[in-house]
Amino acid sequence: MSILVVGSVAFDSIETPFGKVENALGGSATYFSISAGYFVPVNLVAVVGKDFPDKYSSVFKKHAVNIQGMEVVDGSTFQWKGKYGTDLSNPETIYTHLNVFQDFSPKIPQEYKKSDVVFLANIDPELQMYVLKQVNKPRLTACDTMNYWIENKKNELLKLLKNIDIFLLNEGEARRLVDEPNLLKCGKAILGLGPKKVIIKKGENGVLLFSHSSVFSTPAYLLETLKDPTGAGDTFAGGLMGYLRKSGRFTSDSEIRKGIIYGTVLASYTVQGFGVERLSGINYSDIQKRYHDYRRLTRY
Amino acid sequence: MSILVVGSVAFDSIETPFGKVENALGGSATYFSISAGYFVPVNLVAVVGKDFPDKYSSVFKKHAVNIQGMEVVDGSTFQWKGKYGTDLSNPETIYTHLNVFQDFSPKIPQEYKKSDVVFLANIDPELQMYVLKQVNKPRLTACDTMNYWIENKKNELLKLLKNIDIFLLNEGEARRLVDEPNLLKCGKAILGLGPKKVIIKKGENGVLLFSHSSVFSTPAYLLETLKDPTGAGDTFAGGLMGYLRKSGRFTSDSEIRKGIIYGTVLASYTVQGFGVERLSGINYSDIQKRYHDYRRLTRY
Repeated sequence: MSILVVGSVAFDSIETPFGKVENALGGSATYFSISAGYFVPVNLVAVVGKDFPDKYSSVFKKHAVNIQGMEVVDGSTFQWKGKYGTDLSNPETIYTHLNVFQDFSPKIPQEYKKSDVVFLANIDPELQMYVLKQVNKPRLTACDTMNYWIENKKNELLKLLKNIDIFLLNEGEARRLVDEPNLLKCGKAILGLGPKKVIIKKGENGVLLFSHSSVFSTPAYLLETLKDPTGAGDTFAGGLMGYLRKSGRFTSDSEIRKGIIYGTVLASYTVQGFGVERLSGINYSDIQKRYHDYRRLTRY
Repeated sequence: MSILVVGSVAFDSIETPFGKVENALGGSATYFSISAGYFVPVNLVAVVGKDFPDKYSSVFKKHAVNIQGMEVVDGSTFQWKGKYGTDLSNPETIYTHLNVFQDFSPKIPQEYKKSDVVFLANIDPELQMYVLKQVNKPRLTACDTMNYWIENKKNELLKLLKNIDIFLLNEGEARRLVDEPNLLKCGKAILGLGPKKVIIKKGENGVLLFSHSSVFSTPAYLLETLKDPTGAGDTFAGGLMGYLRKSGRFTSDSEIRKGIIYGTVLASYTVQGFGVERLSGINYSDIQKRYHDYRRLTRY
């Protein structure tokens, strides 16, 4: 009972009005893995450089994340630097150094090829498809993407979506993908592209889930202090997929809704600290407690 | 079992990317009354000019709204013209002709002075206070406001808030009133100003309710087509107060939450048409049906 995730592991330098960090552990697969790791073991496939420090490997090990599939190659680890304004949305990218990530061609270790739950974090949709082809009939597949691929590799993305159970994207990406401002129409149009479920992430305004039989809308967890939104979306995906993997009821609408609440709860921890510092410092009972706080916040 | 509402009745000319209307029946008290009228009889106190047509009076009568307290005086009815852009937020005001509304001094008819539920729609907070003083110990008081009063009559507004049970305002107004960007902190700070409950309306992003013991967050109803958001906030207040008046359990947190859902449902009808056309054309079973749709949309 584990999850295979393929994506980026990076050094993030982040500045927000509330502070900054330099070369912190980041990357889509990192946030996803730590988050999902609170529910089930995670098998991570990624690439880092020789400069990747032991202290960061230790973070994964602490969180039930198996990093045997994290290749260490000559060169430097992917580096990103971004700066957020007071509204903590749309960071300005100061630099993106792909480094060893530029030639990333994810090889799935033999023992992971039977993974029945696969998460394809935001990478080139051709690579996402390449991963899927290496896995032997997974029972649940999910992926994320970004505007860059929607603009530059749309055909590859559309091909991938026909093989995906749960497609996660943010509201701006959703609107761009189907050129439709209304999110209800967006969700339905994206369902028409192939995925069985579509999840549109609206940041501080919550999440929408679309399936062929229903729509679900739920707000974000309310926080008095947000420090750094980096990784919130991948953390959300980790909580959702980790919960679903643990539950085992992959097609149950009520389980997916519950998974979305867990994803929301996990993401709320990520934004409370810089990088993975807060997410990495919680335990399962913190998650359960906040899940119940969220119920009190939303039930009627 | 009725509600007293004091506010504006106006002729609205509205343009959105989806069409326009000229001199349609509008005003805060109008939307509130029609909405609340689906639950209980409403006693309306307002002022209009001699130009107010019978066909608009008939709309009120159709909706259990008693307009005996709607003064008809020499002059023209309040007129507003606004134009919305594609995102349907923050209309540009083309003109505001206060006309007879300029000298509005709400006199509460003797038979309304024992009203136990009072809604003070968005007017000068001095007038709102003046209304409250005329009513004999209401059991439930609620009010709305706008940025203009926050900027120009803040002291009067603060005095009013000490006498209010439920204070409704939108997110921009909330942030401005207490000079705080974070909505959770905003809600708590506004509670500190006196009202027993604070409701922050976030438009398409739903609603927050703050009380001293809990916070409630719920999303908006999802619609594929929005035509005109004018009056959505007052319609929301009407649904909430109408439901509460019918329920009679004015201090129950669970009843207020349920009232907020009814307010959300009613507001969703208003935005589907221009002016009151859609809101005015529904019946109680439409409301019940959409309430259940909303439950399906949000439950987990």
